[in-house]
Amino acid sequence: MKIISIYPGTFDPITNGHLDIIERAAEIFSEVIIAVAQNSTKNPLFTDEERLELIRASVKHLKNIRVDCFEGLLVAYAKKKKASVVVRGLRAVSDFEYEFQMALTNRKLAGKLTTVFLMPHEKYTYLSSSLVREIAQHGGDVSGFVPAIVLKKLKKKFKR
Amino acid sequence: MKIISIYPGTFDPITNGHLDIIERAAEIFSEVIIAVAQNSTKNPLFTDEERLELIRASVKHLKNIRVDCFEGLLVAYAKKKKASVVVRGLRAVSDFEYEFQMALTNRKLAGKLTTVFLMPHEKYTYLSSSLVREIAQHGGDVSGFVPAIVLKKLKKKFKR
Amino acid sequence: MKIISIYPGTFDPITNGHLDIIERAAEIFSEVIIAVAQNSTKNPLFTDEERLELIRASVKHLKNIRVDCFEGLLVAYAKKKKASVVVRGLRAVSDFEYEFQMALTNRKLAGKLTTVFLMPHEKYTYLSSSLVREIAQHGGDVSGFVPAIVLKKLKKKFKR
Amino acid sequence: MKIISIYPGTFDPITNGHLDIIERAAEIFSEVIIAVAQNSTKNPLFTDEERLELIRASVKHLKNIRVDCFEGLLVAYAKKKKASVVVRGLRAVSDFEYEFQMALTNRKLAGKLTTVFLMPHEKYTYLSSSLVREIAQHGGDVSGFVPAIVLKKLKKKFKR
Amino acid sequence: MKIISIYPGTFDPITNGHLDIIERAAEIFSEVIIAVAQNSTKNPLFTDEERLELIRASVKHLKNIRVDCFEGLLVAYAKKKKASVVVRGLRAVSDFEYEFQMALTNRKLAGKLTTVFLMPHEKYTYLSSSLVREIAQHGGDVSGFVPAIVLKKLKKKFKR
Amino acid sequence: MKIISIYPGTFDPITNGHLDIIERAAEIFSEVIIAVAQNSTKNPLFTDEERLELIRASVKHLKNIRVDCFEGLLVAYAKKKKASVVVRGLRAVSDFEYEFQMALTNRKLAGKLTTVFLMPHEKYTYLSSSLVREIAQHGGDVSGFVPAIVLKKLKKKFKR
Repeated sequence: MKIISIYPGTFDPITNGHLDIIERAAEIFSEVIIAVAQNSTKNPLFTDEERLELIRASVKHLKNIRVDCFEGLLVAYAKKKKASVVVRGLRAVSDFEYEFQMALTNRKLAGKLTTVFLMPHEKYTYLSSSLVREIAQHGGDVSGFVPAIVLKKLKKKFKR
Repeated sequence: MKIISIYPGTFDPITNGHLDIIERAAEIFSEVIIAVAQNSTKNPLFTDEERLELIRASVKHLKNIRVDCFEGLLVAYAKKKKASVVVRGLRAVSDFEYEFQMALTNRKLAGKLTTVFLMPHEKYTYLSSSLVREIAQHGGDVSGFVPAIVLKKLKKKFKR
Repeated sequence: MKIISIYPGTFDPITNGHLDIIERAAEIFSEVIIAVAQNSTKNPLFTDEERLELIRASVKHLKNIRVDCFEGLLVAYAKKKKASVVVRGLRAVSDFEYEFQMALTNRKLAGKLTTVFLMPHEKYTYLSSSLVREIAQHGGDVSGFVPAIVLKKLKKKFKR
Repeated sequence: MKIISIYPGTFDPITNGHLDIIERAAEIFSEVIIAVAQNSTKNPLFTDEERLELIRASVKHLKNIRVDCFEGLLVAYAKKKKASVVVRGLRAVSDFEYEFQMALTNRKLAGKLTTVFLMPHEKYTYLSSSLVREIAQHGGDVSGFVPAIVLKKLKKKFKR
Repeated sequence: MKIISIYPGTFDPITNGHLDIIERAAEIFSEVIIAVAQNSTKNPLFTDEERLELIRASVKHLKNIRVDCFEGLLVAYAKKKKASVVVRGLRAVSDFEYEFQMALTNRKLAGKLTTVFLMPHEKYTYLSSSLVREIAQHGGDVSGFVPAIVLKKLKKKFKR
Repeated sequence: MKIISIYPGTFDPITNGHLDIIERAAEIFSEVIIAVAQNSTKNPLFTDEERLELIRASVKHLKNIRVDCFEGLLVAYAKKKKASVVVRGLRAVSDFEYEFQMALTNRKLAGKLTTVFLMPHEKYTYLSSSLVREIAQHGGDVSGFVPAIVLKKLKKKFKR
C-alpha cells in the first residue's frame, strides 16, 4: 500500500517539534513531502530558500522524505502530488480549532484527502517557531528547541 | 509498506461517526483492527458479543478490516498484533485532553506505537454512543446516527 | 409575535444563576416554561415536588413564567407545549460542548426548535447546583448563591 | 411582545453561516437589524457599501429584517434603535471567550441589553468570512459557503 | 514573612507530578501542609492511612512540609491552620474550570485565602493518580510516574 | 523567608484586574516588582513613562511593591533582580495556553524560577487593557474597570 503524505507548514525555522512529527510520519507513510508554504508570512525571519535548506539539512537521516514548497490551496498541491494524506501536529487546544477548520475545509474541497493529526512528544508541547525566534532574538538559549544547524544559523542572524 | 492499525473503543453501539473514521482509516492503512474493549463499562446496553456482531455487520463492505476484542492495556494488545498505529477519532475539545493523555501514556509505555487522530465528518461532530442510547431509550429517531442494523437492534431493545 | 420558550433543567436546587437566566428570558420571550426534568438524577437532594415548589416560590415576582415538569425527550415536550425556543445558560467552556451536542441533536430531531444561549451575570459564572449542595452539606454559607427560600430549605435538610 | 434585535458584524462578506443565524433570529424576534460595523477592519475585501448590498440581496426572502451600518459602541447604537437583544453566532470554543467578554462588557455598559447566542447548523461550524476570502483568492470553490450573489461578486474580484 | 500554604488532594496515590508541585511550593512558601481529603472517594485504592504514609515517605527529603488529613470545607480547615494560601497544580484546560470554580468559591467563602496555581513539569502534564491506578492494575509499568515507595506498594496490591 | 516576585506585563494601561492580582501577590510574597515590558507593543496608547507613572499612582497604598521596566528575556531580568517567582493572572482558557507556554519556557531557561498563577476576582474575569482602550476610545464608561487616575488620563487622551 503506497500512501503519499504531505506535511505543510511555514517552518520559520524548523524546530525539534516539527522533526518529531516528521519522524513519526515517516514510519507510517510511504512518503512524506515536507511542503513549505511560500509567501505565507509578511516578514519571515528566514527566506523560503533558507527554510528549505534548513529542513533538508535536518532530515538527512530519513529516507522517505521529500522537501518542497508550494503556493495557493493545499488541496490543489496535494492533488498534483497524488497525496492522500495531510499530516498535522496537534499540540494544544488552541491549535485544535484552527486545525479542524482547515481539515474540514480541505475535506469539503477534496473529499479524498484525509487529514491525520499526530501528537508531538510532550517535551515539545508548547514549542513553536515564533517562540524560538523570540527567545533567540533576545539572546536566550534555544539549543534544546531546534536542530544544531538551525541553532548555528540563528546565532548568525542575531549576532551582535 | 504494511502498516497495521488498531481502532479501539467501547462501541456501545457503533455509530455512523465510528464508521466514518473506520472508512478513512481503511483507505490509508493496510489493515484496521477494530478492537472492542471488553468489560470496560459497568452496564453496557449491548453485550460484548452483540457489539462485535453489530460492528461486523456494519463494516461488511470494507476489505482490510478485522473485528476483535481485547482486555487489559492497549499497548500490550498492539504489540501482540504487531500494530504500529492506534487510530482515534477527535471530535471536540473535551475529547482532546483525554485522548492526549492516552496517546502520551501509550507513547511512554510503547515508544514505537504512534497514535493517529482522524476527524469525523462535521455532521458527526457531536455524535456519541451515549447520545444514541439516550435518544433511542426515549423513543427518539436515531436513524441518521447509526447503521440500519444498529437501528433495528435498538428498536428491539427499547420496544414497548 | 408570541414566542413560547422552555428553560429545562434539574434545578436541584434552583440557584441565583438560574434565576438570573430566567429573568433575562422573561424579558425577551412572551412566555418562559421552567421545565424540571423528572427522574433525571439518581439521588437528588430534593424531590421533584420540592424542586417545583422552590422554583415557584423563587419566581413569584415574574409574570410570564410557568413551572412544569417533563419526562422523556425535550423535543417531544416542546412540541406538545408549542414552544419554539429552548433557553440554556452558558457559563464556561465545559458547558459549551455538552450544550452544543444537545442543541445540535435537538435541531436534528426537531428542525423548528431553536436553542438560545444566555450568559449569566459574571458573579454566577462558576455557580452550580452541585456546588451549592456540597458547600451546604459541609455547613458552609451559601446565602449569596441561592434564593432565601432555598437557603432555608437547605438549612433544614442539613440541620445537625 | 415586540422585541427588536441587532445582529452586528463585519460581514466581509456575508456567508451561509451568517444567513443561517439570521433566519433563526428572524423566527423568534419581531425585528432583526443586521448592523455592519463600519471601518472595523483595515483592509476589507468589500467596501461598506458592497457589504450592505450583498447582505440586502441575500436576505430579500425574509420580512422582518433591516440592514444598517453603525460606528462606535454597540450599546450606544442599540439604545438609539430601541433594541433589547444582541444576536451572536457561537461556533467554537475560540469564539466563546471573545463573545463572553463582549457580552459581559455590554451587560455592564447597558444592563438592559441581553446578548443571545445562536448556534449555526453544524455544517457551518468552522465557516468564517476570512476562510471564504482565503479560498476564493486562491481560486478554490466556495459555492457551498456563500449565497449565489456573493459567489458571483467574489469571482469578479478574483478574476484573473 | 511567614506564609503557611495548604496543598489539598486525594493522593490515591501520590505521583511524581504531585511531588514536583510540592517541591516548588516548598521553595516559595514557609510551610506546605499536604492535606489528604478524607472519605472523598467511594472506593479508594489506598486507605487514608496508607496514603498519608506514602506521602510521608515521599517527602522525607523536604523540610518545611507537614502531612495531615482533613474533612469538610477546605476554607474551614485553612482557617484552623492559619494558612493564607491554597496550592493547586494546573495541568490542562479540563483542570482549569474546575479549579477556577473552587478558587472563586473559596475566595467568596474566605476572602483572605489566596489560591495559587503551579504548573507541573511538562513531563507530568497528563499524569494523574487515576491513570497510574489503571495502568498498574493491568500490569503496565508506572515506574516513571510514581516515587519508588509507591511503585512497591502498587506491585503488592496488584500482585498476581 | 524572603521571596522576591515579579509581575511582568504591558499595562497599557493598568486596570482594576491587574490591581487585584497585585494586592493578592503583595500579601503572600515579601516583595512584588511590577515590571513593565518596554517596547513590547508597536503603537501603545501610553508611553513607557506614562504607564510607569500610572502604576505608581495606583499602588501607592501598598508597601512591598517596586515599579520598574525591563527589556529582553524575563528570565535574565529575574536573575538580575534575585527574583524566584513570576506572578501571572489567569483569567480564561485563552490565557491558559499562552501562559503555560511562557511558564514552561521560562522553567526550561531558568529552572529556579517558579511561575505562580493567581486568579483575579470574578468581576474582572473578562477585563483587559485592550478592552479598556477600545471602550474609552468610543466614549464608553470605563470607570468600573480602571483606577481613578487612569480614568482621568484616558478622558484626557480621548477628549473631543
